[in-house]
Amino acid sequence: MIESAVKKIAVFTSGGDAPGMNAALRAVVRTANHYNLECYGVREGYNGLINNDFTRMGPRSVKNIITEGGTILKSARSLEFKTKEGRQAAYENCKKLGIDALVCIGGDGTFRGANIFNEEFGIKVIGVPGTIDNDIFGTDNTIGYDTALNTAMEAIDKIRDTATSHNRVFFVEVMGRDAGFIALNSGLATGAIDILIPEQKDSIEDLFRTFERAEKAGKASSIVVVAEGEKLGSIYDLAKATKAGFPDYDIRVAVLGHIQRGGSPSCADRVLASQLGYAAVVGLMEGRTNVMAGLKSNQIVYTPIEEAIKKHNEIDPGLLKISEILAI
Amino acid sequence: MIESAVKKIAVFTSGGDAPGMNAALRAVVRTANHYNLECYGVREGYNGLINNDFTRMGPRSVKNIITEGGTILKSARSLEFKTKEGRQAAYENCKKLGIDALVCIGGDGTFRGANIFNEEFGIKVIGVPGTIDNDIFGTDNTIGYDTALNTAMEAIDKIRDTATSHNRVFFVEVMGRDAGFIALNSGLATGAIDILIPEQKDSIEDLFRTFERAEKAGKASSIVVVAEGEKLGSIYDLAKATKAGFPDYDIRVAVLGHIQRGGSPSCADRVLASQLGYAAVVGLMEGRTNVMAGLKSNQIVYTPIEEAIKKHNEIDPGLLKISEILAI
Amino acid sequence: MIESAVKKIAVFTSGGDAPGMNAALRAVVRTANHYNLECYGVREGYNGLINNDFTRMGPRSVKNIITEGGTILKSARSLEFKTKEGRQAAYENCKKLGIDALVCIGGDGTFRGANIFNEEFGIKVIGVPGTIDNDIFGTDNTIGYDTALNTAMEAIDKIRDTATSHNRVFFVEVMGRDAGFIALNSGLATGAIDILIPEQKDSIEDLFRTFERAEKAGKASSIVVVAEGEKLGSIYDLAKATKAGFPDYDIRVAVLGHIQRGGSPSCADRVLASQLGYAAVVGLMEGRTNVMAGLKSNQIVYTPIEEAIKKHNEIDPGLLKISEILAI
Amino acid sequence: MIESAVKKIAVFTSGGDAPGMNAALRAVVRTANHYNLECYGVREGYNGLINNDFTRMGPRSVKNIITEGGTILKSARSLEFKTKEGRQAAYENCKKLGIDALVCIGGDGTFRGANIFNEEFGIKVIGVPGTIDNDIFGTDNTIGYDTALNTAMEAIDKIRDTATSHNRVFFVEVMGRDAGFIALNSGLATGAIDILIPEQKDSIEDLFRTFERAEKAGKASSIVVVAEGEKLGSIYDLAKATKAGFPDYDIRVAVLGHIQRGGSPSCADRVLASQLGYAAVVGLMEGRTNVMAGLKSNQIVYTPIEEAIKKHNEIDPGLLKISEILAI
Repeated sequence: MIESAVKKIAVFTSGGDAPGMNAALRAVVRTANHYNLECYGVREGYNGLINNDFTRMGPRSVKNIITEGGTILKSARSLEFKTKEGRQAAYENCKKLGIDALVCIGGDGTFRGANIFNEEFGIKVIGVPGTIDNDIFGTDNTIGYDTALNTAMEAIDKIRDTATSHNRVFFVEVMGRDAGFIALNSGLATGAIDILIPEQKDSIEDLFRTFERAEKAGKASSIVVVAEGEKLGSIYDLAKATKAGFPDYDIRVAVLGHIQRGGSPSCADRVLASQLGYAAVVGLMEGRTNVMAGLKSNQIVYTPIEEAIKKHNEIDPGLLKISEILAI
Repeated sequence: MIESAVKKIAVFTSGGDAPGMNAALRAVVRTANHYNLECYGVREGYNGLINNDFTRMGPRSVKNIITEGGTILKSARSLEFKTKEGRQAAYENCKKLGIDALVCIGGDGTFRGANIFNEEFGIKVIGVPGTIDNDIFGTDNTIGYDTALNTAMEAIDKIRDTATSHNRVFFVEVMGRDAGFIALNSGLATGAIDILIPEQKDSIEDLFRTFERAEKAGKASSIVVVAEGEKLGSIYDLAKATKAGFPDYDIRVAVLGHIQRGGSPSCADRVLASQLGYAAVVGLMEGRTNVMAGLKSNQIVYTPIEEAIKKHNEIDPGLLKISEILAI
Repeated sequence: MIESAVKKIAVFTSGGDAPGMNAALRAVVRTANHYNLECYGVREGYNGLINNDFTRMGPRSVKNIITEGGTILKSARSLEFKTKEGRQAAYENCKKLGIDALVCIGGDGTFRGANIFNEEFGIKVIGVPGTIDNDIFGTDNTIGYDTALNTAMEAIDKIRDTATSHNRVFFVEVMGRDAGFIALNSGLATGAIDILIPEQKDSIEDLFRTFERAEKAGKASSIVVVAEGEKLGSIYDLAKATKAGFPDYDIRVAVLGHIQRGGSPSCADRVLASQLGYAAVVGLMEGRTNVMAGLKSNQIVYTPIEEAIKKHNEIDPGLLKISEILAI
Repeated sequence: MIESAVKKIAVFTSGGDAPGMNAALRAVVRTANHYNLECYGVREGYNGLINNDFTRMGPRSVKNIITEGGTILKSARSLEFKTKEGRQAAYENCKKLGIDALVCIGGDGTFRGANIFNEEFGIKVIGVPGTIDNDIFGTDNTIGYDTALNTAMEAIDKIRDTATSHNRVFFVEVMGRDAGFIALNSGLATGAIDILIPEQKDSIEDLFRTFERAEKAGKASSIVVVAEGEKLGSIYDLAKATKAGFPDYDIRVAVLGHIQRGGSPSCADRVLASQLGYAAVVGLMEGRTNVMAGLKSNQIVYTPIEEAIKKHNEIDPGLLKISEILAI
């Protein structure tokens, strides 16, 4: 291996926590150690940079964390880092410690911060996509997404038991403020009769037609999965409108909420996080900066962070069609 | 074995569904078959009696259902059965079919219906306590309770990941409109700093003192588990009041909701349901009526249904004390 | 949509069962129904063709099976189908019923049978890759693989608790007679210090060096994951050789075995199975035959069955390297 | 509260690890802290006493461990402690540090050690029953048993998928060298057609009759659960004998093994462990010694250790009968 382009790196997690962040952190720390880079962990994301909250990390500091949800470095949203002063302070701390590159584990917001930090101060940054929302361009899946899918699916499977036992209609809200990935995939996987996501134009008429089709097909109970960011209305609005249209229906609402963020990561997430954490360090050593490490068709790829921020993973409309055909 | 007191029985599930109801049903059907009783399943609880919705069940009708949540017989709350006319119609149907006893799987409301039905028409009834709430007198645990505890606990464990990663305070609502069993046990099992249940008098001042103690002890994140029926206020009220008292806290609310009712039953629930389903049939054969089959210290016991309705399982105040000592 | 190339199809599952086979079956049946094809299920794989064991399937026949492991059509290995007479009988039955195409859900062996059946009798066939082994060319993942990974991982996580508590070395055997996919990914995901798979040349010296490295790094307990088909020796041989080399080690062996085949499919497997079941029917309607439906980078692709049989998914050597760097 | 009988206590885990040992440890440490006792953790059971491996523990040392399987104090079987010299050394270390009582978390062997240590040196000891085997007299359940039951049951549920899909007979071995609790309860919960345990006299003829009954009832696949310590023969012997008797059967063997010891404890185990850890400290404070804390009908009870060692929890023969009636 040729000379590394970096010697001393720092790593942090930022934005909403996602299962597999710890696995990514472990990969960063151990890869750095393997290649004799000095590695520091920064607590609470960008706040830690500003507050000079660095800790030296070695292979034993990340012992056993591959199985754990959340992030041992903690995460936070930093208002201060949005100011020039905040970033200046962060940079001073990095300089003082001799940090020559940052591994930034998080989502959109995290990458935006990294991008501006790199542009302003020239410090090398590399992104690792950690978010349950799967809305980051440049990688087939983001870290945490697969685990969140399984969590949502298992919860909806449980709700199905009650729906079936009582001939009920359940509206289930899953996470996804701007993206329908969790809704679409967990809905398909649980046989939801309809899936409402922000990426498609839904109408209450279409929803009603679906209920009618379901009835005609002999379904006595139904589940409708709705993404948090659905534009047709909140899950409560939808339930109310449905009750008005179908007064006989016994309708219930379930908001899955925060359980979707936690839990021990799935195998796919642990493997993905390991690959991307490794790729981030190797990318930095090879001289890359202001890029994000991703995995496409099982190949590591690096995408300019700017592109990762501007573009978005697109929902596959084919999946929606398949879901419609299979549900009833 | 001496002559059985009954020849033809019917079984139904009623009230909120609970994991293990299917296991109990399987036990009833197979025990009946073993002792050469004719056995009918009634769909949708008391409604099925009124609507004459009986099906002959044999050992193969309950194949593999021991693993399944919900109830294959479906459940419903019956307004009609609350009227004399409704019960009269139900009785006529039983008489016509020659049913001489009913196994009634459900909770409080189910037993009240059985009790009045028995008193009015003399038809033999026996109760099997199936409810996640564990509030039935005459049995250490009700069927479904153990599974619900594990579901609630696993959900709170996941929420803990996010709470810890973001230094947050989470208020988590679990089921239990009149009873704090789920809250108390799942809260103790997840290290909740406070547990608010309808059985005890809580005050916002006590809650605040707990937060102060937790802070002093160095806890950066906390979970408060609240039973649905908590009298101090809704979980949203509590969160709001806490925010007013501790403006720095990053507070979130999570309502676990219907996931607590579903899912494949735990081993303890399958075993309990098997024992009580068996005991119900044997009890009827021995001539018992208007009683509930329960399990106390691993012994089958029969309690008069009237007593099971009037009394309630009591929360162990010792557990609350232990929880308080261990949480912080 | 233009005229369909087929009118009456049959579907079966064959070879070792895999979680998601039911989801694939559901997709085939419901897609066929949606496009007005007549659809038959064949019980016990090729045996059912020979024994004329066909059942008409409609959308309600596959109700709720998306959540279930195994296969409701049952599976079997058929010796008779390996004979010309057997295949002739199978063909007669198909002809009699007017079946013009077969959807064959299974692995390598299943596809070999389909290929020869198509070549001999001209009956249209399409393959759907259902096997936990992930060794089928023409698809990123096979149906059942992701679920098996999570099952293996969760089992090894549990074993880790004991390994750590007792400072033990565990050799864990996972499935994979010819392919190391499960071993490699579950081993990486559980921090195994070494992973032995049939695709790579292993030596006892390398294994010993790994133990020495682990000791030096301060690891007091270790897990070695071994694929069933590892060529260096059985897991018992390896344990014995290690004990000879490191007499102080407290060594245990665990064979995960059949638990890896069962269980409710993961979200990824349910979605994949739904897509491939759908794609199989649509492929047949479009006139395709003797191909396998697969998913690459989230795109449906059709690969000639002959190619799917001859080639194999390759282990990514990069993953082995990453595993080695991260484990200690 | 009156004056405590002890001031400085030590706690350790010994014997096979069990889920919930960490929860018990947490309860001991935090209860001690609450009542202002000094508390030390001893690593690796009795070996730690001999090797003077004590650490001061405060409430933060047991943070978050309630969710974790295994034991953070580690466990070991100590040959040295079986010698007088070993125990003398252990005592000297306790004396030097001023330890006036020991909380001993483990099973039979652990209690035997505690009993002799108390008798020889007069040091106060109290036992907490932590073992998955549930064979300790003086408590309805031991810590870890409920979790092990769920683990075994979930594994057998997975095996059932394959058994059903292939019409196979599976012999499944579960843990329990001297006790059939896990076999009996997990077998009942999974609908095993037969359950072989060391507490009952089994015969190959009875087993064969069961297979015949199952066949006659139309069961195409079967599971037989066998306890490790079954006296009729090993699971391989039983499979072989069955194959000889029923040459058509497709028979498989599965040994669940070490997965049964690990995993995050169930809610019931966490609550039980919390109660018994608390009760152990309070018992010592009240002046009790040479007893074991247990839970009977939700009441804390103290049983002389000698009695806990000599007697054993008995299998309920009623459960075996119920299992037989319900399985087929």
